[in-house]
Amino acid sequence: MANNIAPREVDYNQWYLDVISAAELADYAPVRGCMVIRPVGYAIWEGMQRELDRRFKELGHVNAYFPLFIPESFMTKEAEHVEGFAPECAVVTHGGGEKLEEPLMVRPTSETIIGHMYAQWVHSWRDLPILINQWANVVRWERRTRLFLRTMEFLWQEGHTAHESSEEAVEETLRMLEVYRSFAEDFLAIPVLSGPKTESEKFAGAVTTYCIEGLMQDGRALQMGTSHFLGQNFSKAFEIRFEGRDQVLQHAWTTSWGVSTRLIGALIMSHSDDDGLVLPPRVSPYVAAIVPIFRKEEEKNRVHEFINKAMTGLLGPEEVEASEKRFGNNQIQQLFYNQATSQQIVVDKRDTMRPGDKHWFWTQRGVPLRIEVGPRDVDAGHVVVKSRLDGSKEIVPLEKLTKEWLDAKLENMQKALFEQALARRDSSIAVANSYQELKDHFEQGRRGFLRCRFNPGKEAEAQIKADTKATVRLIVTDTATPGTCIYSGEPSTTEVIFAIAY
Amino acid sequence: MANNIAPREVDYNQWYLDVISAAELADYAPVRGCMVIRPVGYAIWEGMQRELDRRFKELGHVNAYFPLFIPESFMTKEAEHVEGFAPECAVVTHGGGEKLEEPLMVRPTSETIIGHMYAQWVHSWRDLPILINQWANVVRWERRTRLFLRTMEFLWQEGHTAHESSEEAVEETLRMLEVYRSFAEDFLAIPVLSGPKTESEKFAGAVTTYCIEGLMQDGRALQMGTSHFLGQNFSKAFEIRFEGRDQVLQHAWTTSWGVSTRLIGALIMSHSDDDGLVLPPRVSPYVAAIVPIFRKEEEKNRVHEFINKAMTGLLGPEEVEASEKRFGNNQIQQLFYNQATSQQIVVDKRDTMRPGDKHWFWTQRGVPLRIEVGPRDVDAGHVVVKSRLDGSKEIVPLEKLTKEWLDAKLENMQKALFEQALARRDSSIAVANSYQELKDHFEQGRRGFLRCRFNPGKEAEAQIKADTKATVRLIVTDTATPGTCIYSGEPSTTEVIFAIAY
Repeated sequence: MANNIAPREVDYNQWYLDVISAAELADYAPVRGCMVIRPVGYAIWEGMQRELDRRFKELGHVNAYFPLFIPESFMTKEAEHVEGFAPECAVVTHGGGEKLEEPLMVRPTSETIIGHMYAQWVHSWRDLPILINQWANVVRWERRTRLFLRTMEFLWQEGHTAHESSEEAVEETLRMLEVYRSFAEDFLAIPVLSGPKTESEKFAGAVTTYCIEGLMQDGRALQMGTSHFLGQNFSKAFEIRFEGRDQVLQHAWTTSWGVSTRLIGALIMSHSDDDGLVLPPRVSPYVAAIVPIFRKEEEKNRVHEFINKAMTGLLGPEEVEASEKRFGNNQIQQLFYNQATSQQIVVDKRDTMRPGDKHWFWTQRGVPLRIEVGPRDVDAGHVVVKSRLDGSKEIVPLEKLTKEWLDAKLENMQKALFEQALARRDSSIAVANSYQELKDHFEQGRRGFLRCRFNPGKEAEAQIKADTKATVRLIVTDTATPGTCIYSGEPSTTEVIFAIAY
Repeated sequence: MANNIAPREVDYNQWYLDVISAAELADYAPVRGCMVIRPVGYAIWEGMQRELDRRFKELGHVNAYFPLFIPESFMTKEAEHVEGFAPECAVVTHGGGEKLEEPLMVRPTSETIIGHMYAQWVHSWRDLPILINQWANVVRWERRTRLFLRTMEFLWQEGHTAHESSEEAVEETLRMLEVYRSFAEDFLAIPVLSGPKTESEKFAGAVTTYCIEGLMQDGRALQMGTSHFLGQNFSKAFEIRFEGRDQVLQHAWTTSWGVSTRLIGALIMSHSDDDGLVLPPRVSPYVAAIVPIFRKEEEKNRVHEFINKAMTGLLGPEEVEASEKRFGNNQIQQLFYNQATSQQIVVDKRDTMRPGDKHWFWTQRGVPLRIEVGPRDVDAGHVVVKSRLDGSKEIVPLEKLTKEWLDAKLENMQKALFEQALARRDSSIAVANSYQELKDHFEQGRRGFLRCRFNPGKEAEAQIKADTKATVRLIVTDTATPGTCIYSGEPSTTEVIFAIAY
């Protein structure tokens, strides 16, 4: 067991911080509530970016960049929006040594400035749809922060689209929700529920907010992404108007959707264990770490030669040769498993560290496979492959070490991780048939998703939150049979999911 | 000739803005001095990012992310640095509705906050080198701004490395300078000179600043990238210390290096002409635009069928089929020429635009090849290929349209563009043998690079700038024969390049 990581059972919050620290994913910055995303953490984010960006572009979206600063007057143009975001803003009052005439807000989200620009760009239905995404940093002045999950500054993508009709905008909102769902499940191996939020939980300025919700290992829910149908709220506030096919001047219909570095927190809390980080192979910056084991100088050469043969089998002679030139004398030899995704296999040749310490080093970074090679393995002509998923050990002869073998091995781990998370999630969905059952559930310290018949409403939701700390995570959309609201006793055709959320 | 673009001879500055506007690369934002980078402009930046990122990673660098905000007290720790940057900073004084105890500077560059973090991470020589790069936005409060070349907020990458020895840090500084040089020449097709800056032109806080300098079509120089050897200046200010191999506690040696969205300005001013943008094929988001020409509905089908055959020849049947599903009813069919770089071939099927207007549309976006197909071309079994580089026209039979043909065609254009820019640059290097010659050169309105023997010095450089507007762009490092300084008449072994710069 790792001595630098608190077990989940003992202190879940400390465990989370210890996993981050042991894997060197992030540090708190010297500015309150801000984080430094360290190279291993950032490489995970880059993997997510690459995959999402590809999915966005396949659907016809393009990227652009809008300013960090938003004039204060812009924020006030959409009434709900300013109410939701103005209290969270960082404000620039001075620039170039002088006081500004109008203060600038550091963007907490970009609907306003993008709305202003779309109004310049859109004149006719021929200019629509606009399908733009932005990768950017945003700032929200949070009181309580937690690495990745809630920080003052974070990185995200925000899609902003404008359409001719309400139907087309709703379609886009749901299309992107589905992109998020499949990305979370196929790429991050995190099962999610998806559906609309209630009025009181929606984005400030949206008509409807849809979300994906994951369930963390401690049974708390995490909102992992949102997709908003904004109706004509922002197009009216910013005058995004166009001449329609019917020659009538009308307001566009807009959407926005985003996911952030919070997803790194979701990854950690979905898969990691008391030994540290566990990463699905598709998102892991390193897919395998090779640890040479030897005592004498004579053994060292034999082991390294054998490792070179193994690497040649896995990645081909060109990549082995290139890696030797590429990184010079670096003691951790880095070979590209996939140059397009920058995913690597590493050979840990550090002579200042013992094999046991290297074992922990790569285990705690969540590397899917650890491959050990000692003198006896060389004699037997095989390597020992250890899985980060279940600690299982496999002896693999040199001639079996091919790219195809590795691909299949990683693919199986990806699936197994998802199945494991899915089984845990599914066993954590309970049902409440009365408000008393709901209260008992959460008061007894149970967590997970609780499904029940409920008519959403601001006051009812506030009271339930005050009683139990639970909130409506989303409305279940696959049922419409009549029933009774557990809270009001009124007739209800709405089912919802309650949970205690991050 | 384009009627929406002022000719270079008439008004060069207006030409620059018109080219940007016609290609829809960027707009001024509603915040003074800030820009909106529109999708075509941003796609160019993404191409540069992808290529640079690959080159950085091949050399063992990794990416990370540091906070946008820097405590005011950090900026003052390195004396020269604060003097250079503090007057340019945007300052956050309020957050979450309250006045902050210590104002926060929006990063103009990140040496200080990164230095602070490196001090936490570095303890032993085993922790070195640190080779980190960051892709980020930065803010500098500029008085006079110009799209891409000088804006208040811009996007860039900043590499920050820490090393055991002075030699290793200098080596890294020069290695990254060489990365910038080869990137500019091989990828952007812009020839550059590279070398050290004088003391008065160096980065605030550096020991030595190296740069690459390009020459724009109006004969003015543009600094396109810098690489700084920072010595121990920042490691002493932020206490980045380590125990060396000799067991002695010592300060690390650091470097920093960066290029920015300014490079988009360099691209425009290096290659474009009076018809609008011209892009080197390697950096162009679109490599070819196909324009169907027809009058009657019957012709339309034949032309589109033929274009499908041409696309199949160029990109294969899978990509043609995928593109039809991918983008639905979009009137501009987008096919991936290279999925890894997101570069596309487009078929412009818009029925609201005439072929002549489509011609201008793609010409002004700098697309390397325009391919026209009319009913008579279908009958003859060929297409008409027009080059953006020289307007030349080539008739190519259907069976010759393969990926290999296209690759070779684009590769030739890439080379030809570089040769053209190189010939222009080389013919713009003059020599001055006296200060009078230097003054005459610039006073007569001549531009370009002017090479001469000169002993750099703050006062001399300031006087020459006052007299001529010219500054020392860099010190030529390939000569060391004795001679006489044109300004002071003293002995001098230093040759420099003067130019009037952006």
